[in-house]
Amino acid sequence: MTEPEPDERRRTIEQRLEELGVELPDPFPALGTFVPAVRTGSLVFTAGHVPHDGDGVVTGRLGDDLSVADGYRAAGLAARSLLATLRQELGDLDRVVRIVSLLGTVNATPSFVEHTAVVDGASDFLVQVFGEAGRHARLAVGVSSLPANLALEIQAVVEVT
Amino acid sequence: MTEPEPDERRRTIEQRLEELGVELPDPFPALGTFVPAVRTGSLVFTAGHVPHDGDGVVTGRLGDDLSVADGYRAAGLAARSLLATLRQELGDLDRVVRIVSLLGTVNATPSFVEHTAVVDGASDFLVQVFGEAGRHARLAVGVSSLPANLALEIQAVVEVT
Amino acid sequence: MTEPEPDERRRTIEQRLEELGVELPDPFPALGTFVPAVRTGSLVFTAGHVPHDGDGVVTGRLGDDLSVADGYRAAGLAARSLLATLRQELGDLDRVVRIVSLLGTVNATPSFVEHTAVVDGASDFLVQVFGEAGRHARLAVGVSSLPANLALEIQAVVEVT
Repeated sequence: MTEPEPDERRRTIEQRLEELGVELPDPFPALGTFVPAVRTGSLVFTAGHVPHDGDGVVTGRLGDDLSVADGYRAAGLAARSLLATLRQELGDLDRVVRIVSLLGTVNATPSFVEHTAVVDGASDFLVQVFGEAGRHARLAVGVSSLPANLALEIQAVVEVT
Repeated sequence: MTEPEPDERRRTIEQRLEELGVELPDPFPALGTFVPAVRTGSLVFTAGHVPHDGDGVVTGRLGDDLSVADGYRAAGLAARSLLATLRQELGDLDRVVRIVSLLGTVNATPSFVEHTAVVDGASDFLVQVFGEAGRHARLAVGVSSLPANLALEIQAVVEVT
Repeated sequence: MTEPEPDERRRTIEQRLEELGVELPDPFPALGTFVPAVRTGSLVFTAGHVPHDGDGVVTGRLGDDLSVADGYRAAGLAARSLLATLRQELGDLDRVVRIVSLLGTVNATPSFVEHTAVVDGASDFLVQVFGEAGRHARLAVGVSSLPANLALEIQAVVEVT
């Protein structure tokens, strides 16, 4: 009698993060009069999440002092921070049913045109972690400035159980 | 015995589009790691939709190389693309209960002030098609840049059955 | 027999506004093809709300002709206008269960970095009025331009009964 095929669906999201070698950062504090996420019914609306790692937040402007590769990496960091918030909010990332939508605001010069390639850094990570449940509707735009000269922010609506 | 008055409500949205002489474009592919729309409960959250017609996408900046009339027309094209996505997602546009909200991001110079007149190109079209059910809450802003130098993008939340 | 302690929760929001000495403005008309708010299920999605008082709307750009203090005050005015819309939409502000999310778009120069301090003018007011139910998820960004050169706009999602 052979072992059953590993059931992709039975792996937990925490196991998936471990497979990917991803360690989520500590939830980032809301630096202002707001909270990182609010649940209403089966939806969680998140605050804007910022790119940060052990060295601090990623600042700069796409088309100026940041490359598309820098931006892609920053978007991935912001998505990790988003998951850290969801884990704190939900207790368990397996309660994520679907990443519904993502708004990516990129600190960019007027001549910058590669927002899609930048925000894909967040979207690719969410699909790596959640599979089809990570595929979301998205709007990516260039903004003239962000708090503290952050490179970008991402905000999400998430369906949960 | 007279014919009953034509009942506005009984016309289908497809009949309404035909009356208006509008042919929806093919659904626009998501050029990045996202999907055109996600349904959660009775709501559909859409991706950013771009102005396109048979000749390609509309690019340029309001206040620079595009006039308000160009922008109004581009917003109408983006709204047609939005409906093409909803038809694909829902199978039938009569399942739209209400256009709930619209976010219009306009590629604009810092001195541009007529975003309202531009995004009305999308809103007017939605009201022409859906009547009162097409009236939505809206935020229209100027952004410093958009992917591929698009003239604008619109993103919607739609209530459906 | 002593009077029972005043029950914070029993005060109505209208009483709270009176305590704060706040008089809401008249609901601001939607200047375009949209409506100030749409309810869907237990959620209200609002339009962008603008800062206005008896003297008209607040225009200008943060980092240029408006100070952070000007912006904070403008954000508070926009939040008052938001409540005026909610009162009109709901009939009674006590039907607000939670301010779920807020999007603050600030008319700002590329070098502006204090969006958080500006949009706090709206968030602080909402918490003063609603207490914990006023704490929301938030995204604050700088935009290159706004309709009529408005200083800022705020858009909200609100859970209601």
